[in-house]
Amino acid sequence: MSPAKIPRPAAELAADAIAVRDSTIPAAYRLPKNTQLPKNVTTVLESSGILSAAELAIVDLDATRLAEAIAARKYSAVEVTTAYVKAASVAQQVTNCLVELFAAEALERAAELDAEFERTGKVTGPFHGVPVSIKDHLDVKGHDSPSGFLDMIGNVAKEDAHMVEILRNAGAVFYCKTTNPQSLMHLETECYLGVTASPWNTDLTAGGSSGGEGALIGMKGSPIGIGTDIGGSVRSPAAACGIYSFKPSVRRLPYGGANIPVGPAGYEGILGTHGPMARGVDDLEKYMRLVASTEPWKRDPTVVSDPPSLDVKPWREVTPKRLRVGILRDDGVVRPVAPIRRALDAAVAKLKASGDFDVVDYAPFRSADNWEIISALYWPDNGKAVYDHIAGTGERVVPLTEWIISQAGGRQRSTEELWQLVARRDAFRSAFAAHWQAAGIDILLTPVGPSPAPAHNTARYWNYTSFWNLVNYPAVVFPTGAHVDPATDAEDGAYSPRNDAEAYVYDCYDAAQSEAAPLCLQTVGYIGYEEETLWATKKIVEAIQK
Amino acid sequence: MSPAKIPRPAAELAADAIAVRDSTIPAAYRLPKNTQLPKNVTTVLESSGILSAAELAIVDLDATRLAEAIAARKYSAVEVTTAYVKAASVAQQVTNCLVELFAAEALERAAELDAEFERTGKVTGPFHGVPVSIKDHLDVKGHDSPSGFLDMIGNVAKEDAHMVEILRNAGAVFYCKTTNPQSLMHLETECYLGVTASPWNTDLTAGGSSGGEGALIGMKGSPIGIGTDIGGSVRSPAAACGIYSFKPSVRRLPYGGANIPVGPAGYEGILGTHGPMARGVDDLEKYMRLVASTEPWKRDPTVVSDPPSLDVKPWREVTPKRLRVGILRDDGVVRPVAPIRRALDAAVAKLKASGDFDVVDYAPFRSADNWEIISALYWPDNGKAVYDHIAGTGERVVPLTEWIISQAGGRQRSTEELWQLVARRDAFRSAFAAHWQAAGIDILLTPVGPSPAPAHNTARYWNYTSFWNLVNYPAVVFPTGAHVDPATDAEDGAYSPRNDAEAYVYDCYDAAQSEAAPLCLQTVGYIGYEEETLWATKKIVEAIQK
Repeated sequence: MSPAKIPRPAAELAADAIAVRDSTIPAAYRLPKNTQLPKNVTTVLESSGILSAAELAIVDLDATRLAEAIAARKYSAVEVTTAYVKAASVAQQVTNCLVELFAAEALERAAELDAEFERTGKVTGPFHGVPVSIKDHLDVKGHDSPSGFLDMIGNVAKEDAHMVEILRNAGAVFYCKTTNPQSLMHLETECYLGVTASPWNTDLTAGGSSGGEGALIGMKGSPIGIGTDIGGSVRSPAAACGIYSFKPSVRRLPYGGANIPVGPAGYEGILGTHGPMARGVDDLEKYMRLVASTEPWKRDPTVVSDPPSLDVKPWREVTPKRLRVGILRDDGVVRPVAPIRRALDAAVAKLKASGDFDVVDYAPFRSADNWEIISALYWPDNGKAVYDHIAGTGERVVPLTEWIISQAGGRQRSTEELWQLVARRDAFRSAFAAHWQAAGIDILLTPVGPSPAPAHNTARYWNYTSFWNLVNYPAVVFPTGAHVDPATDAEDGAYSPRNDAEAYVYDCYDAAQSEAAPLCLQTVGYIGYEEETLWATKKIVEAIQK
Repeated sequence: MSPAKIPRPAAELAADAIAVRDSTIPAAYRLPKNTQLPKNVTTVLESSGILSAAELAIVDLDATRLAEAIAARKYSAVEVTTAYVKAASVAQQVTNCLVELFAAEALERAAELDAEFERTGKVTGPFHGVPVSIKDHLDVKGHDSPSGFLDMIGNVAKEDAHMVEILRNAGAVFYCKTTNPQSLMHLETECYLGVTASPWNTDLTAGGSSGGEGALIGMKGSPIGIGTDIGGSVRSPAAACGIYSFKPSVRRLPYGGANIPVGPAGYEGILGTHGPMARGVDDLEKYMRLVASTEPWKRDPTVVSDPPSLDVKPWREVTPKRLRVGILRDDGVVRPVAPIRRALDAAVAKLKASGDFDVVDYAPFRSADNWEIISALYWPDNGKAVYDHIAGTGERVVPLTEWIISQAGGRQRSTEELWQLVARRDAFRSAFAAHWQAAGIDILLTPVGPSPAPAHNTARYWNYTSFWNLVNYPAVVFPTGAHVDPATDAEDGAYSPRNDAEAYVYDCYDAAQSEAAPLCLQTVGYIGYEEETLWATKKIVEAIQK
C-alpha cells in the first residue's frame, strides 16, 4: 500500500503550475529578468530583439495571407512556426496569456508539413503550416486542459476536440494553449495562473473568457485562434486587445471536445459556441469556410446541416446588395462612455460619407430583461459544479466568479422554475425577432461593451455582448483603428447615471487609466445568417478603416 | 351573484360534445340511419350517392393537381369546397375522424377566393382554393382546440397557428378540425369523442396521434392536412390509412400556435414537429416549399434559417444522383409480421429490378435503448399535466394514456436525472450518426411499424417511428399499393419471439382481422436533408408503385 497523500496547499499547487508553464518558454526567448516594461507592451515584440526582421514580417501577416505565402513557398512551415514560437514566448512574458507552449512538438509537425509539401507538391489543406492557438478548455490531443481550475490539471486529452481535429486535418500547427478564467464565466481572464492583461495597456484586462487568445493575438503571438462564447467570451477579448472575432449562432460549429466543467451535461437552457479570433474578417471567413467544407453535421448531429444539394457546397455565396445598417448607440441601461461614443460616431460618419450604406437608428430592446433571463440561465445548478472544482484543491475563489454566480439570484431553482425560465427565453427571442424584422435592417452596428477594456477585476456589464447570446444572433468584433486618448476621451462628470449598473461603469471609467485601449465595434446579423454577417461586416470595416 | 355551478358528469359532457360535433355535419350529407356499413368503408364515398360524379373526380385529385385545376379554372373553389365538405361528412360518419366541420365558413371563404381570382386574374397563392384539414391541437382562428381533453373545450383560438396562417395566406380553405387522442401520445386515436377507425377496416385503428387526418385523407375527405409527430404521429396514421406523410427534422417548420397541453412549456428534452399528410410525395414537397418561401425563421427564431444568399431562395434544389438505398428489415427487437415483410421484399425486388438504385442491407442500432431514452424523455413531469387535464372533468383515462405514461418508469425524475437523460440522448444521437455515416447510404427504406394497422387499443410498439424522433431524421411514409390478404399473410406460428414486446406484437396480429389493411413503408434521410429525402423518396415510390 502507498501511504495516504497529504493534500498540498492550493497556493503551492498554483506556484508549481506557473513554474511548469514558465518552463515551457524556451530559454533563448526569455526577456532579461530586469526588463522594464511599458504599459503598452505591443512594442516589446520588436524591441526585444528576439525576432529577426524576417520573422517580424511573418507575424505581421493575417492567417489568410500567411497561408498564401506558405503555399507560394515564400516561407516554410518551420520558419513560420519558429517566428510564432518566439512571438508567443514574448507575449506570454508581457501579458500572461499562455497555459502551455509546446514548441518542440510544433516544430516537428511543421517539418513534417514542409516535407510532405516538398514530396507531393500539394498543401495539406487551407491552413497548411499556419500556427493556430487554442483556448485551454478545448482538447488538444496529448495536452492538458485544466480549463481554469487547479483540480483539473493532469487530465491529458486522448483526442482532439472536433474543431481542433478539423484544423489539424487542414494543416494547422498547434503550439500553445491559452488562458481562460476560473469558471470560464468572466469578461476578464484570471485563474490560478494569475491575471491576463491587454497588450495595449497592462493595467487593463485582456477581456474574457478567451482572454489568453485575445492577448496572444493582440501581441501578434498567433495569427488565428479558437475561443468560445456564451456571453461575450470571444468578443470582449477581441475588443480589449484590438483584434477580430466572430461568434456565430449556436450549432453552426461543432462543440465536441470542449470541457465545460462549470455546469451539468445535458443542460440546454443557454448554449455556447466557439468562434475564431484573428487579424481580419478574411480570417474569420476562412475559418468558417473550412468548417463548412468538412460537413461537420455528419459527425456531430447537433450541428445545423447546410446542404444546398446532394452535391454539398456548404458555404453559401452571398449576392451583393446595398446594405441597410442599424446603429444601436445605447442599450437603454448603460450608455457607453466617451471614447466608445466617439468611435461609434466616427464610424457612422464614415459609413454615411461613403454613400454605400443606408444608415438608420436602431432602438434598444429590453436589455435589463435580457440580463435577468440569461444570468439565471447560466447557473441552473446555482454554481455547484464551479464550487465543487474550487473545493477540489481549495483554490482561491476569484471575486468575479462569485459575482457572476450571484447574478443568478443565489438559490437553486426547481425543475419547474428552470422550465419557466426557458419559456421566458423563448418568448424573449420571439419578441426580439419581431423588433429586429420591423427595423428592416441587414446588419447592426453597436458597441462591444459600455467602455474600453476595464481595469482588472471590474468588468461587470455584459449586456452589449450577452444580449446576442440570449437571442442567438451572429456577431463580429473589429478594431476601428482608434485608441483611447486621455486628452479627448475624459467624461466631464455631467452625466447623471440612470441606474446602479450605469453608475458603476461611469465610476470605473478613467480616461487616463484607459490610455491606448483599443476602440472596437461590433456588428450583428440575423440568426443563421453567418455568411451574410461576415460579408456585410467586411464592407463596413473597409469603409470605417479607410 | 350567479349560483355555484354543479359540475356535470364527464360522460354527459362527452355526449354533449359528440352531439355538437355531429350537428356540424349538414343534414343533407348524413347517411341514412340504418345504413349497413362494410368493414372497408372506402367504398362508401361512392356508394352513398352524396357526391356527384364530378365531385368524385375532384376528390380523386391530389393537392398539387387540385391546385393546378383551380388555377386553370377547371374547378371553382366553391365547387371544390362543396365536394370536400360532402366527402368529409361521409368520412366522419364512417370513421369518426372530425372534431368539427365548419362548412358555411369554408364556403364563404371559397366564394371570396373565387371572386378575388375573377377580379384580379391571379391566384392568392399556391394553395388557392385547396381545402386543408387541421389536426385539432393546432389553432385555427375562431375555432376551438380541445386537443383531446374534455376540459379544454370552449377556448376559442384568437389567432391562427403560424403554420395555419401560412396556409391561409397561400389561399387554403379550412373546413374542419380532426381528432387526436387523449394525451396526444397514442399511435391510435381515442378521446372523449370515441375511437377513430381506419377506412380500410374499421376494426383497426386509424393510427395516431394524427388519426383524424389519416382517416379523413384516407377516405378522400381531404386532399392534404397538417398533423404533428413526436413519436410517429403523422406516420402511424398514414400507414394505417394508406396515405403519405412527412416528418421533417425538428425546427424546419414553425410550431407556434400548437397546443401542447401534455407537458411543461420550456421543456426541450424531446421536440415534436408538424408535418403534411397527403395523397402523394408532390403534395408533401409543395407544402415544404410553401413554408420555406415564407422565411418562417424571421418570425419564429426557433426555426432553422436557410438563406442561400441575401436574395433568399429557401428551398434547395437537388442535384440528381444515383441513390444508395439501405434496407432495414428488422430493428433487432420486433421483427415485422408477414405482410410487412412481404411488402418490403416486394419493394426491394422492384428497386433492384429497376437498375436505378444501389440497394444494401442496413443493420439495426440499439432499438431498445432508443425506447428507454425517448419514452422517459416524453414525460418529464411523469404525466402530471395529462392527469391534471383528465381530473379537470373526471373524464375516463384511456388505457393507452396510462400505458404510455407508465413507460417512463412511473416516477418523477429529479432535475439532475433529467439532465442525465438529455446527455444520454445526445450520446445516442452521436453514436447513431457514426453508424449511419459508416453505412454510406443516401436514404433508408424500412417498415413504419412491425404490423399493419393494429386492432383498436393494441398499438404499443413505437420503435420503427420513434427512433427517427430521438435521432431527429426526416422520414416519409407512403403506400406500396398492396393490402393485407388473409390468404397469403398469415403467420404460421413457427417463429419464436425474442422478447415480450415481440411476443405481444405476434399475439396481436391476425391476418383475417387485418384484412385490407394498407401496406405502407417508410423512407428516412439524414438530419436537415429534407429536400433530398423527399426527392429520393419520390424516385423510390415511382419504382415501387410501378
